[in-house]
Amino acid sequence: MFLLHPQIAPWLIRGSEAIHVVLLAERGHGLTVQLRCEPDNETRFFDMRYAGREGELHRFEADFPWDHSNEPTIYCFKVIENARQHWLAADGQHPRIPHREQMFRINRTDTPPAWVCEQIFYQIFPDRFCQGDPGLQVKTDEYLYGDGNSRIVAKAWGEPVSPTYPASEFYGGDLIGIQNRLDYLQKELGVTALYLNPIFVSGSNHKYDTEDYYNVDAHLGGNAALATLSTELHHRGMRLILDAVVNHTATNHPWFNLYGRHDALGAAQSPASPWRHWYTFDQAGHHFGWNGYQSLPVLNYAAEELQKQIYADDNAVLRHWMRPPYSIDGWRFDVMHMLGEGPRAKNNAYYARAFRQTLREENPEAYFLGEHFNEASRWLQGDQEDGAMNYYGFAHPVREWLAGMDISYTSATLSTHDFSIWLDSARGRIPYENQLAQFNLLDSHDTARFFTLVGADSNAMKLAVTLLLTYPGTPCIYYGDEIGLEGGQDPDCRRCFDWERAHWNRELLSHYQKMIALRKQRAELRHGAYRALAAAGDVFAFARFTQSGVSLVALNRGSEPHTLRLPIWQIPAQVETWHTADNEPIVAARGWISVTLPPRGDALLLGG
Amino acid sequence: MFLLHPQIAPWLIRGSEAIHVVLLAERGHGLTVQLRCEPDNETRFFDMRYAGREGELHRFEADFPWDHSNEPTIYCFKVIENARQHWLAADGQHPRIPHREQMFRINRTDTPPAWVCEQIFYQIFPDRFCQGDPGLQVKTDEYLYGDGNSRIVAKAWGEPVSPTYPASEFYGGDLIGIQNRLDYLQKELGVTALYLNPIFVSGSNHKYDTEDYYNVDAHLGGNAALATLSTELHHRGMRLILDAVVNHTATNHPWFNLYGRHDALGAAQSPASPWRHWYTFDQAGHHFGWNGYQSLPVLNYAAEELQKQIYADDNAVLRHWMRPPYSIDGWRFDVMHMLGEGPRAKNNAYYARAFRQTLREENPEAYFLGEHFNEASRWLQGDQEDGAMNYYGFAHPVREWLAGMDISYTSATLSTHDFSIWLDSARGRIPYENQLAQFNLLDSHDTARFFTLVGADSNAMKLAVTLLLTYPGTPCIYYGDEIGLEGGQDPDCRRCFDWERAHWNRELLSHYQKMIALRKQRAELRHGAYRALAAAGDVFAFARFTQSGVSLVALNRGSEPHTLRLPIWQIPAQVETWHTADNEPIVAARGWISVTLPPRGDALLLGG
Repeated sequence: MFLLHPQIAPWLIRGSEAIHVVLLAERGHGLTVQLRCEPDNETRFFDMRYAGREGELHRFEADFPWDHSNEPTIYCFKVIENARQHWLAADGQHPRIPHREQMFRINRTDTPPAWVCEQIFYQIFPDRFCQGDPGLQVKTDEYLYGDGNSRIVAKAWGEPVSPTYPASEFYGGDLIGIQNRLDYLQKELGVTALYLNPIFVSGSNHKYDTEDYYNVDAHLGGNAALATLSTELHHRGMRLILDAVVNHTATNHPWFNLYGRHDALGAAQSPASPWRHWYTFDQAGHHFGWNGYQSLPVLNYAAEELQKQIYADDNAVLRHWMRPPYSIDGWRFDVMHMLGEGPRAKNNAYYARAFRQTLREENPEAYFLGEHFNEASRWLQGDQEDGAMNYYGFAHPVREWLAGMDISYTSATLSTHDFSIWLDSARGRIPYENQLAQFNLLDSHDTARFFTLVGADSNAMKLAVTLLLTYPGTPCIYYGDEIGLEGGQDPDCRRCFDWERAHWNRELLSHYQKMIALRKQRAELRHGAYRALAAAGDVFAFARFTQSGVSLVALNRGSEPHTLRLPIWQIPAQVETWHTADNEPIVAARGWISVTLPPRGDALLLGG
Repeated sequence: MFLLHPQIAPWLIRGSEAIHVVLLAERGHGLTVQLRCEPDNETRFFDMRYAGREGELHRFEADFPWDHSNEPTIYCFKVIENARQHWLAADGQHPRIPHREQMFRINRTDTPPAWVCEQIFYQIFPDRFCQGDPGLQVKTDEYLYGDGNSRIVAKAWGEPVSPTYPASEFYGGDLIGIQNRLDYLQKELGVTALYLNPIFVSGSNHKYDTEDYYNVDAHLGGNAALATLSTELHHRGMRLILDAVVNHTATNHPWFNLYGRHDALGAAQSPASPWRHWYTFDQAGHHFGWNGYQSLPVLNYAAEELQKQIYADDNAVLRHWMRPPYSIDGWRFDVMHMLGEGPRAKNNAYYARAFRQTLREENPEAYFLGEHFNEASRWLQGDQEDGAMNYYGFAHPVREWLAGMDISYTSATLSTHDFSIWLDSARGRIPYENQLAQFNLLDSHDTARFFTLVGADSNAMKLAVTLLLTYPGTPCIYYGDEIGLEGGQDPDCRRCFDWERAHWNRELLSHYQKMIALRKQRAELRHGAYRALAAAGDVFAFARFTQSGVSLVALNRGSEPHTLRLPIWQIPAQVETWHTADNEPIVAARGWISVTLPPRGDALLLGG
């Protein structure tokens, strides 16, 4: 029994009253085929109509009602053949009724903006990407940072980062530098959207400790540089999202002002401060810091005035930067899961919903991206985030499968079978539209670089890049990964981009370029359906497909070549001819294609 | 690698600030052992301390904080041995980090009453159990029921039930009859608690269409009979729960009064009715009925006056019967999942929480039981129900495993392996305390009788009864099951109890008596930890255990005898000797016990 359920039109049609779905099966006779749903929490079964052949498969159809008491609407399929039951849920087939969280899920209206999955994102840590105006660079001992014990140090471009001053050494990258490199990013590499790490006023290089939410740091070029950059990006048809660090502030923010560096009477200075209740203090008068770090006092969303300042008022922080001349296309929320009332995450979902509403009010097409190192399914059901930094459902399993290491950097041995199940079960727990809006990444400013984790093995890195550019979701490249920039854990992963082209890993860069170009060329890679086709030994293969195009992606992580037969008859697309990514024709024989994968190599087979 | 995590003291201790847990492992050296939790949604790992041997196992310990932002607090374990990862969650071991819903979960304060799991419940459909006062019986054509097309018919005790008048034929069972049979129930069978199907004024025999929430139907004996029955039950140390049918009323309730049989101006009679907004009418003035049945108009909890009447006011329905002289010990809520605002289940969780609070206010030890044919995990996280009618996690899998049929009565072939996983994954999604408060059943007034589903095979039925009386949760016997009463789907499953002892299935009854006595005698069967020990072929075995007692339960559903070796070394209990349920000594050899199971037979091995 083979079942396939592509959650995209024309196999799925969202009506105003009902949802039309198609189930494609290996056989068409001798089956009892039902759709099961739970409107108002009550079980309902709908018999599915047989609707003839679709390629090698048999088509069954049903229409079923939206659930007016729950979002998302959930459903699954029950097929009985010879008294044997097969249930199909969003994470695969089961011998019995799946759990609620495994079922297919779809929202009536709360869907992510469609542009997200069409992008190639590029993440930039601004101090380390490119210096545009040397006059802006922070000077050694220019100011006091934090309690004054962390010295401010100016470094030369490309000098090794130092664990001594991880937050307070500066290389002079700025927004002008980013703007200067847009041709490289857009035309040479193929990037279409930027995600910038924090850029607002802050004494640190990472700027996750904000001192002023309404001003871009002068060392990065100030507000004018952001307005110019944003205008230029949009002129080029590119997108921009920024980092919203609204869970905590710097100790040096005027609202808090621990060291009295502003005129204002900050929360840390007096219980009578007008901002006192924007933070939380214990009975001894000590404030709560993020994850115990006293340098990052946590904001208390129980304070109504804070809610107004951050999101509710007309000129609230989140709204301000979404308006001209900045007009950013979305926000990435730092530690979104931890934000809430008191020093804690209490009522977190309430604020996530409020943020969503705020963003949608400013721009119905805004992208709400949350940072989550761990499972974010709760935030991705439609009412909160559009997508998450997809560590859990992408970076984490890819790291285990290719680098033999988990997200905590401890050794892990993940079979290809378990790898495939991990991907399916992570995707299956969120609505399909949100799967496409997931922010896929291999690494970031918070992790060691993937290339370093695989021992600078270009072949292994290329496999990871192939996955990044072909998997459902929007891919994000961490600056420098494409030229083979290395780096261990934070702060080493924040080395300067090396603009000396002779130092670049050309093999890697050209693989990025090829995969980016392919993703742009093939609609199915951007928003097509997904189906795993093989997951055994060291070989993993899957298909992305629409009704008219198929991309088959096959990867071999092992050290031996491997010949694989792929069951293309399982893919319900109208395909006339097959060819390789290099446009070599491929012969398909009776529903199967054979392909030989080199050691630690991949293959892409394209049909249309 | 073997891991075991019994969620009961002394292996788990609930502190005011932290939770102390123990992990028991097959090996003690060469392991990295960590506890993972998510206080305020942030990952935290705690290294577990090695604390020496516990029997054949090795003990690791940790203390970790309650999560102050979420209930329940969740956690799991990560063990690394030779670069291979083993994660232990509440539903078993996994090669990778489990999903949130699979993790162990524990509530600080929202726990079910401890008395629940100590009971042997007995469900009675009052019209069909025993007639105490023949003068009370409904007479043929005594009144009009519904629209008057369903004739009221008096039947003689034991006559076959008829599909012609499924709701309106009466056999004359009453509360006096129940009281008359308490010696049978308590002393002969061993029952300790009763669950009665609805007893309030209603024209139907099932009384799921209430006409008066403040009066017991006169044909059942009226309020006086309930007061007397309740007093007698409590005098005997027994408990009583009633059926709360507050999702909908009868069309004949004065609030609705579709046929004008009361003086009151009901909602159905005029848009100006004071109760109009307690129900929902469409634009054409038609009311909404439960599941489309117009005879069961759905209550609209958006109406504040309705909220007061049902639960909020001082003499609200739910409160009234929890007070003397009735003093019921809990409520079973009919179609709990469907209740809400408008005609639908909107904001269902809000009302479930309000009901919980109401019950707790009246009696901190009250039992909140919800009816759910399907997965009820959402209602069982601590903030809503204590337990559910456990169709999903017990009746459903047991029916598939032993009767080869699913909850929809369609054929199903469930392997013993999948059966065991089903039990584990259903239990694992709810806090352990709620697992113990689950209301386990084989059948009910809403299903065919299990004995009939297995073709009146006493051996198969005895296997099911063994499971019912040994599985975590509180067991409930549907009246007559114990004497071999048969019956197909509703209304056939509501036949009269046959008080002619010569007709009883003595073999079955004595198995019930033996298993009930054993459950009462063995604390581990009532509230001990659970661990599956074997699940292959046709044989399933598990252990229930405390630190000082173990019950091993082994079942063979096949037609051939089977000899099984049970790994008792896996059970961390101090056991001196082993014996059978018939007190025959058993020899255990180096951590294993051998037992031979007859075809379609079971074995109980007791250690202490």
